[in-house]
Amino acid sequence: MKLAVVGGGSTYTPELIDGFARLRDDLPITEIALIDPHAERLELVAGVSRRMLARSGHPAKVVATSSVEEGVAGAQAVLFQLRVGGQAARNVDETLPLQCGCVGQETTGAGGLAKALRTVPVVLDLAERVREHAPDAWIVDFTNPVGIVTRALLDAGHRAIGLCNVAIGFQRTFASHLGVEPGRVSLGHVGLNHLTWERAVYLDGEDVLPRLLAEHGEEIADSIGLPVELFARLGVVPSYYLRYFYAHDIVVAEQRTKPSRADEVAAMEAQLLEMYADPAVDTKPELLGKRGGAFYSEAAVALIASLLGDRGDVQVVNTRNAGTLPFLPDEAVIEVPATITAAGAAPLPIDPLDPLYSGLIANVSAYESLALDAAIHGGADRVRNALLAHPLIGQEAIAGELTDLLLEANAAHLPWVKP
Amino acid sequence: MKLAVVGGGSTYTPELIDGFARLRDDLPITEIALIDPHAERLELVAGVSRRMLARSGHPAKVVATSSVEEGVAGAQAVLFQLRVGGQAARNVDETLPLQCGCVGQETTGAGGLAKALRTVPVVLDLAERVREHAPDAWIVDFTNPVGIVTRALLDAGHRAIGLCNVAIGFQRTFASHLGVEPGRVSLGHVGLNHLTWERAVYLDGEDVLPRLLAEHGEEIADSIGLPVELFARLGVVPSYYLRYFYAHDIVVAEQRTKPSRADEVAAMEAQLLEMYADPAVDTKPELLGKRGGAFYSEAAVALIASLLGDRGDVQVVNTRNAGTLPFLPDEAVIEVPATITAAGAAPLPIDPLDPLYSGLIANVSAYESLALDAAIHGGADRVRNALLAHPLIGQEAIAGELTDLLLEANAAHLPWVKP
Amino acid sequence: MKLAVVGGGSTYTPELIDGFARLRDDLPITEIALIDPHAERLELVAGVSRRMLARSGHPAKVVATSSVEEGVAGAQAVLFQLRVGGQAARNVDETLPLQCGCVGQETTGAGGLAKALRTVPVVLDLAERVREHAPDAWIVDFTNPVGIVTRALLDAGHRAIGLCNVAIGFQRTFASHLGVEPGRVSLGHVGLNHLTWERAVYLDGEDVLPRLLAEHGEEIADSIGLPVELFARLGVVPSYYLRYFYAHDIVVAEQRTKPSRADEVAAMEAQLLEMYADPAVDTKPELLGKRGGAFYSEAAVALIASLLGDRGDVQVVNTRNAGTLPFLPDEAVIEVPATITAAGAAPLPIDPLDPLYSGLIANVSAYESLALDAAIHGGADRVRNALLAHPLIGQEAIAGELTDLLLEANAAHLPWVKP
Amino acid sequence: MKLAVVGGGSTYTPELIDGFARLRDDLPITEIALIDPHAERLELVAGVSRRMLARSGHPAKVVATSSVEEGVAGAQAVLFQLRVGGQAARNVDETLPLQCGCVGQETTGAGGLAKALRTVPVVLDLAERVREHAPDAWIVDFTNPVGIVTRALLDAGHRAIGLCNVAIGFQRTFASHLGVEPGRVSLGHVGLNHLTWERAVYLDGEDVLPRLLAEHGEEIADSIGLPVELFARLGVVPSYYLRYFYAHDIVVAEQRTKPSRADEVAAMEAQLLEMYADPAVDTKPELLGKRGGAFYSEAAVALIASLLGDRGDVQVVNTRNAGTLPFLPDEAVIEVPATITAAGAAPLPIDPLDPLYSGLIANVSAYESLALDAAIHGGADRVRNALLAHPLIGQEAIAGELTDLLLEANAAHLPWVKP
Repeated sequence: MKLAVVGGGSTYTPELIDGFARLRDDLPITEIALIDPHAERLELVAGVSRRMLARSGHPAKVVATSSVEEGVAGAQAVLFQLRVGGQAARNVDETLPLQCGCVGQETTGAGGLAKALRTVPVVLDLAERVREHAPDAWIVDFTNPVGIVTRALLDAGHRAIGLCNVAIGFQRTFASHLGVEPGRVSLGHVGLNHLTWERAVYLDGEDVLPRLLAEHGEEIADSIGLPVELFARLGVVPSYYLRYFYAHDIVVAEQRTKPSRADEVAAMEAQLLEMYADPAVDTKPELLGKRGGAFYSEAAVALIASLLGDRGDVQVVNTRNAGTLPFLPDEAVIEVPATITAAGAAPLPIDPLDPLYSGLIANVSAYESLALDAAIHGGADRVRNALLAHPLIGQEAIAGELTDLLLEANAAHLPWVKP
Repeated sequence: MKLAVVGGGSTYTPELIDGFARLRDDLPITEIALIDPHAERLELVAGVSRRMLARSGHPAKVVATSSVEEGVAGAQAVLFQLRVGGQAARNVDETLPLQCGCVGQETTGAGGLAKALRTVPVVLDLAERVREHAPDAWIVDFTNPVGIVTRALLDAGHRAIGLCNVAIGFQRTFASHLGVEPGRVSLGHVGLNHLTWERAVYLDGEDVLPRLLAEHGEEIADSIGLPVELFARLGVVPSYYLRYFYAHDIVVAEQRTKPSRADEVAAMEAQLLEMYADPAVDTKPELLGKRGGAFYSEAAVALIASLLGDRGDVQVVNTRNAGTLPFLPDEAVIEVPATITAAGAAPLPIDPLDPLYSGLIANVSAYESLALDAAIHGGADRVRNALLAHPLIGQEAIAGELTDLLLEANAAHLPWVKP
Repeated sequence: MKLAVVGGGSTYTPELIDGFARLRDDLPITEIALIDPHAERLELVAGVSRRMLARSGHPAKVVATSSVEEGVAGAQAVLFQLRVGGQAARNVDETLPLQCGCVGQETTGAGGLAKALRTVPVVLDLAERVREHAPDAWIVDFTNPVGIVTRALLDAGHRAIGLCNVAIGFQRTFASHLGVEPGRVSLGHVGLNHLTWERAVYLDGEDVLPRLLAEHGEEIADSIGLPVELFARLGVVPSYYLRYFYAHDIVVAEQRTKPSRADEVAAMEAQLLEMYADPAVDTKPELLGKRGGAFYSEAAVALIASLLGDRGDVQVVNTRNAGTLPFLPDEAVIEVPATITAAGAAPLPIDPLDPLYSGLIANVSAYESLALDAAIHGGADRVRNALLAHPLIGQEAIAGELTDLLLEANAAHLPWVKP
Repeated sequence: MKLAVVGGGSTYTPELIDGFARLRDDLPITEIALIDPHAERLELVAGVSRRMLARSGHPAKVVATSSVEEGVAGAQAVLFQLRVGGQAARNVDETLPLQCGCVGQETTGAGGLAKALRTVPVVLDLAERVREHAPDAWIVDFTNPVGIVTRALLDAGHRAIGLCNVAIGFQRTFASHLGVEPGRVSLGHVGLNHLTWERAVYLDGEDVLPRLLAEHGEEIADSIGLPVELFARLGVVPSYYLRYFYAHDIVVAEQRTKPSRADEVAAMEAQLLEMYADPAVDTKPELLGKRGGAFYSEAAVALIASLLGDRGDVQVVNTRNAGTLPFLPDEAVIEVPATITAAGAAPLPIDPLDPLYSGLIANVSAYESLALDAAIHGGADRVRNALLAHPLIGQEAIAGELTDLLLEANAAHLPWVKP
């Protein structure tokens, strides 16, 4: 079995390799192609990846290449984990919206839109090459904004599923609070990528969320950065990304007085690359844990195993709504538990949502379709409309200035922007 | 034909009377019951109303009473135009949210929620008495927030339709720009009460909105207080109330440096009552035009005439969605053109909405159902959830403080609030 | 020796009585006149005061009266501790500025100005009666805003000194950190009332502030609510009130999501009065500690003892600048260590101030003289100018609206405001 | 007579040349040295300058050089008009503070500090070279922030005077309103550079400001962008730069929705350089009028003429306070009318200032001395203290983040910033 990783030169790849090594029984990989245009970095990452597999006795071969065609040829699954513009573009996503009084974040708000504009055309082009050279391969997309990117892939007819580590992170955290194996815990997870709520936490099928909130509410609330009374009152656990909505002004005030996450991560990446360059390093560095993306290799292994092995188990993924949430169009992409088979993901039925959640989901989903439209067809007006539709922006004058600023700052990544 | 007006002591009633007098051919009224608990004010308003009818030779009798039962008995239609708490409560609606950095307005945001909390129980109680004493009468609700109040009435099984003057105001304005009789102009009006867009303006059936925007864009934009490029880019005309969304920060900045609208209106009302007390006054004073609500008597006369006369013409009203907007629940109340017959209002089919509009509509409609829930069942948690769901608030900490402030300030009107 | 307390019906008086009882050797009081127009409350407070003195074996007689003339007659010192408008007016001071995006506080910003407007004329009138009936008495003013009130008294030729508990609070806190008797600790305290910095902390004459910051910096920073790096960088300790300047936006965000201090204190006062009504209560209740004003009785006793006993020791008080800070007018009132004799307070010389402090002091002192002018001569323009001059406001449009709001909300206390 | 212009390659130089040509009777220049490191731009500017002089028949020779030594050698006056970092750095000054919710401006606030940090060391180095090669020359500084730069020059012992076009702009505008020759109008101008008020406007020695405000108040207010009631209430005319203080939030809101001034000017400069390259262009282009700096050549000519000609007339300049404003240190630099002789500038006496002005002046002057300290000695702590002292910032957390952002963005211009 061959896997290809587009963006394989990411400092994050060793997390993935670590998962492949640990979970080799689930996924009998024989070849991993790391594809990346940055040859130097790719070499360092491939090197440490090979040493990690060797140390664990894993037989898979690691191929490093800048050629997408070569890398994906013969692969059964292709993982997309790229970042167009790198941490520099992310830094713009995280700081520029602050100029207009808006939250700076790389997957939501104006920063998320900028990332979508940069990313969608690149991903679609890559997917086209996958279609040519590995027509039966599944595309598993971790590339943010996952919801919009997945919808772009599906609209273009690709065999794609979007994946995020929020759900698996909650599963592991809750299991740890409960003192049980993660496998016994499943989630009543619902929403859009980076806009989800856990409405139930099942331990061996029984909903223990009320107990979890009663016993670990403070801890859960602290980890998410929202007041504990919110959890108690609603009886649900919103994801960390809801903080950008439910505590918007607090986040803006924090961002006004702190370095950006991109700056932190860039510093971490430099350190990681130095470690990877050390021939003695053959395990995942501790530091990688702070880089974000915990448990994502587990999620990826499980998803690919079920897709290729037609397992029919339930996993939280990003896929077509297809009537699951009746207030959204069928073609919208949602993030929910779905049965994973060789035919793809089929969402489980969802109990009706409280208006407190459905209203925001509908609003953000509407934004996402405008954002996708802007990413595919370009044009300042489409960008401005998407910003006007986003609940974290929603104002005409600010949308106008943000459009100008974002297009100027991202011009190098947007061929349709005139200099 | 007998009409009853609940809240008939409003300084606004002479506007209604003026319409009844001018449009007597459309609506052959023989008795108008003005119902109001404020005897003194009611007497002044009834007095000028009688003089106005007399001057125009209208035969209708005006009865002034504080008894709802007496007033509605035998009426074919009952108009609701009340304001629980008067301009003092409105002043709180308009200023208190500013303490938390939010826009202060009496029909949307935190102020609109406060008004809904005060108003819905009173309206439901009044409607119950209408049901007992005038079981066949139509209730026409002008009482804000019209969308929430109308849904409350419909949910309780009343024969109710909600009415607002935004649509008729646009029709008259556009007709004036076009230099034609208003009757030749109809609107592609869609949304929720106080959250609507004109997507088309039909002159004798042809859409002339592009022409209107090309020729009168500046003027229309100025009257609404939004930049003209918004109108040009979108090709639609949002109502004035969208300004609270699309220009939120600008409105907050203005409100921070200006007296509240309630204070202005209270001053106007004092002046109007002085005029009404003058036995020589037998026409609608000029000043009333600044009081808000232009053309509302025309809209009321037309609606009642069609309901009672089974006319089957098309008017813009607030009524059940019933599948008209597929992304909203059937039981939601929307504001759209509908065919008006003796059976009530039946919405015309609506072309699919751009996500820029549907997202916001879905979000505000979700808020409205939470607001109604809070108004009917009470409880600080329900209030806080409704505030958290409102796109102009949406933050947990602010929702919490606003809940405390609003409940304290409105305690006299909310029996379920403990002192 | 007779003392009179204007505002003696305050729930805070038992704190004062407790000090008189404990420090009887310093101040051989034979009569305490509690003067207050609120007879009922005064009776409760006088009752518990008498029981407290009795319990401690203190011989002083407590007289409760609503007559200023009677109360002050024969007194050697008169304490002013009144609050015009009570907690209700304070609540307005603390919440109304938030409507305009400004911090709500009762001694600085727009709230502080409102309090000055209400208070200065009342204090001047009371002082006039002291002059008539106790011409040799010292007036010790605790009434906020102490700086402005003291200047008003001095400008009118009264024998007045302003007192605040910030300095003594720091002295006690630092002594406790150092593990020594407070008497061995003195302060390099400088600034205006509620705008002060400790530039040195002397233990037996040696400056131990660097050591204090090194060892207890976190604790001190936490108690003041400012980041510890500020203390480390500057090497000084700003008072808690500097937080309204140095962390303005954070305070506004907090105030937007929390009940006002006035509401909290009003609840406490109700509880305290209930306790005072209990004949079994003959000691200062614990709860009083949370009411604010710790150590203020010690400060008062020490000041009166030195004034009446011509002791010549050094205490931190509010008195004329008289060249002490060369960048302020001589007639400004400053808060600094001063030698206290029968002739009053004579400030010690002060080392030149860093511009970081002198700039802000000069700005706020300029505001104070405009505020005093507005309080004495009235007029919306003077109020607006004072607001425009305040560094926490400083904007014309906001100053205008705040003027309107404050005058309207305080009209009952400002005879020159036309309704 | 030889003049040298440091920064002579500025697109603004033709404005200066135009003045020299028109006012040749006042200033008999024989040589103008344009000094600039940007050879290409300098050549274009020198070319058009030569053509302008030729066209007007002015005999002066124009020398273009990148050598400061060569350029200043033999000059009687040296004009400093440089911009370290160009429009790109200015763009950062104008946009970066917005990230922290602060106004973005290149001469005040955080942007003004950044400019001071970049500029002061460069100017001091240049002045040193003037001292060596033209020891008797006067340095006339137009380089912003003029107040801080002038103080830096004076502290280092240079023969320097600071000049700004605000005062002469007002003189011309008022003269035009009055319909008289500018020479008959003089100003009661007082404050710091870019923080001034006109307290009187003398026409032939009589104060006509009340009349000007009565007759042209609206017009004057509009041109400054502040409400007319401010002018009427205060009876003074604040400069345009006071708008950043008196209307701070409005300016921030505008800046959030508009392109930066730097972007506009950069576009203009490109256009101007194209014009200068055209050999047919031999007059000052109209467009230059929009570039800012009107009448500055008149001011420069007048100042140099009086300095070199020992005229003893009165001009508004930036020079040492020396007791003029008693609340500022003697060594502060202020902007006031001064008698100009061969010995330099001697401020006229100034009537006492209202606290509304003196408080803000004292605060900003204190900031300026901290800013100068930071510019000369470097260090993030000094930068942070200066920001904390600035009335438009004043908050610890924001000062911290602004320090980080500004130092990072300006690192190329600040040798003491570690990468």
